[in-house]
Amino acid sequence: MAQRLADRLQEIGSFKAMDLLARARQLDVSGHRVVHMEVGEPDFPTPGPIVEAGHRALADGCTRYTDGVGLEQLRERISDWYHDHYGLAVSAARIVVTAGASGALLLASAMVLNTGEGLLMSDPGYPCNRHFMKAFHGEGQLVPVTPDDGYQLSGALLEKHWQSNTRGALIASPANPTGAMIGESALRSVLDVLSAREGWLVMDEIYHGLTYGSDGWQDSVLALTDDALVINSFSKYFGMTGWRLGWLVVPDTARLDAEKLSQNLFICASSVAQHAALAAFDDDAQAIMERQRQTLRERRAYLLEALRGLGFRIPRDPDGAFYIYAQIPDHLPDAESWSRNLLEEHYVSVTPGTDFGNYLAERHVRFTYVQDIAVLEEGVARIKRSLG
Amino acid sequence: MAQRLADRLQEIGSFKAMDLLARARQLDVSGHRVVHMEVGEPDFPTPGPIVEAGHRALADGCTRYTDGVGLEQLRERISDWYHDHYGLAVSAARIVVTAGASGALLLASAMVLNTGEGLLMSDPGYPCNRHFMKAFHGEGQLVPVTPDDGYQLSGALLEKHWQSNTRGALIASPANPTGAMIGESALRSVLDVLSAREGWLVMDEIYHGLTYGSDGWQDSVLALTDDALVINSFSKYFGMTGWRLGWLVVPDTARLDAEKLSQNLFICASSVAQHAALAAFDDDAQAIMERQRQTLRERRAYLLEALRGLGFRIPRDPDGAFYIYAQIPDHLPDAESWSRNLLEEHYVSVTPGTDFGNYLAERHVRFTYVQDIAVLEEGVARIKRSLG
Repeated sequence: MAQRLADRLQEIGSFKAMDLLARARQLDVSGHRVVHMEVGEPDFPTPGPIVEAGHRALADGCTRYTDGVGLEQLRERISDWYHDHYGLAVSAARIVVTAGASGALLLASAMVLNTGEGLLMSDPGYPCNRHFMKAFHGEGQLVPVTPDDGYQLSGALLEKHWQSNTRGALIASPANPTGAMIGESALRSVLDVLSAREGWLVMDEIYHGLTYGSDGWQDSVLALTDDALVINSFSKYFGMTGWRLGWLVVPDTARLDAEKLSQNLFICASSVAQHAALAAFDDDAQAIMERQRQTLRERRAYLLEALRGLGFRIPRDPDGAFYIYAQIPDHLPDAESWSRNLLEEHYVSVTPGTDFGNYLAERHVRFTYVQDIAVLEEGVARIKRSLG
Repeated sequence: MAQRLADRLQEIGSFKAMDLLARARQLDVSGHRVVHMEVGEPDFPTPGPIVEAGHRALADGCTRYTDGVGLEQLRERISDWYHDHYGLAVSAARIVVTAGASGALLLASAMVLNTGEGLLMSDPGYPCNRHFMKAFHGEGQLVPVTPDDGYQLSGALLEKHWQSNTRGALIASPANPTGAMIGESALRSVLDVLSAREGWLVMDEIYHGLTYGSDGWQDSVLALTDDALVINSFSKYFGMTGWRLGWLVVPDTARLDAEKLSQNLFICASSVAQHAALAAFDDDAQAIMERQRQTLRERRAYLLEALRGLGFRIPRDPDGAFYIYAQIPDHLPDAESWSRNLLEEHYVSVTPGTDFGNYLAERHVRFTYVQDIAVLEEGVARIKRSLG
């Protein structure tokens, strides 16, 4: 092949998590029982009422294209959710249903960034966020955040790191990999700076609902502003990972542009998934999700204590999601080497911090608590042996 | 809202087809029975065996993330399809399963185009193709094609229109809106020019299978080269529009880059759709698709003759897909005005040529034949009345 590929491909790294996952699966296949503390997907099945709605959609032949912005019914249900859950008035007209939060991140990146422009984002942070921006020849502009910052951006950090090509900020709350939620005063200071600089806020709320007690801002950012691009997902709290369904809320003035872009780039999100998701807000489905949240809370409590007992430093309890971002004990080699060794020698799979940025990344790893405590206990026992 | 949106949004037009469809649906809702000759989606339901496989996937809890490139089983089935149907060896490793052909077009555009670069493409052509390129700050470089060109590019046309920023060509065969397939000699001449210029061929084969007798190149372009990016879809021939599933075949050397990009931008395609599609290649599903193809063939024959009888000029029988691109009678106003009038006064919805490019676009409209002949007859009767 003589043709060259576009430059962006050299700027987009592969997920180390994915490479490790592939190796972990190889080990699984060859008979080793790997303890998976790297996967970002709970072990719960999709709640029964949603699956049942999926069956009904198939039986009813709901397998055609929908509107580019999604089924009107589903957009109304999401709008109702903002009302019932947050007490917010978010009209269905501002909601674009997408193929997962990935589709929403892609739309948001395309809507905000010209070539060479960027959004400030926390380091550590979700790696794909940077890569979406790179895909559009923009850039994620990494801002190191510490436990003292609550692992989140603030107005002061925005002012300090703002560059001539900065177009705004991307904030995830709760965040991956830290599980940190942004505090109310930090969020208000961010909005003040963005307002003064006419910058965009792209707000990732995909782990909303999966929180375990926190001083963080529990409401949607839409309670404070109508001008943000807000990303959400049916994958995490609603348990619909493989269905690929999410949504984007846009300001009223950006509605038609978002619709046009969605039509052109996606045609629409999966019709079957959209019809199934209509059941996601019903009481019976919500009751299941609440039970799952309690289960995650118990696993989190167990793993936090166990890891701290092994000498991992976790200066701040994670507020939400299903991640623990931990500093590895000083006597260990760098996180990538240690993670590799842990997998190859002890069959425990974790994600090195270098997947999530640069700042102190080689001294951190991310653990997930998406499996039974018995499995986590086995993982902890193996980690203990590895520290030997 | 004080923030400005990215420039690309001004360069991406909305589908006129979608705007018209929205108006047509309004008319439907207000009690007028609109004859829809604009929609690009057959009236057939997804074949039963595929729907049954979807039910099984739901019952079995196949609702988790899959590999970023898709289920290994499905990639193997697609690879087998190339072998059984075309006699070609296309390894599963070269196949990336995507969210519809849209996902594949997005990957292909991102893989090939830097800012300011473009691909040559036929005018008329599918409008989203240009918009994918615009999304990545590239451009679709329109090459007017005539019935004498078979509505397709050729090596000579590539040479004539090649620009300093041209990175290759995008060819759809069968094409939307003309239904034209590229001839073997034209395709070979295209490949010669691209090879000499180290340019990419992005080949859209999403209407493969829906052909009705033609001298065109019936094989996949993969029979002639392994270096193309080949887009296909489960939407058209396989009847899975709303499931959002397609695939991209890449050269072996671009495999890892395609995987990386797919992981980052999509995570994966719908798991339910992927499991359902495993049944799409089975004999019982194929038998249904073959009957549907015969039905489309009959509708095509009817509508071709009827439109010609009304004075529409269709110099070349369409080879495939489900479109007829027709020059409107000389005494009619421009195609957009006439289409609007036809919808508002006679409740027939068609797509003006201006959706598909510039070349003679204001004298053409696209008709689809995705409904029963009785419905098409009613449409034709109304069109006849509209012509006075």
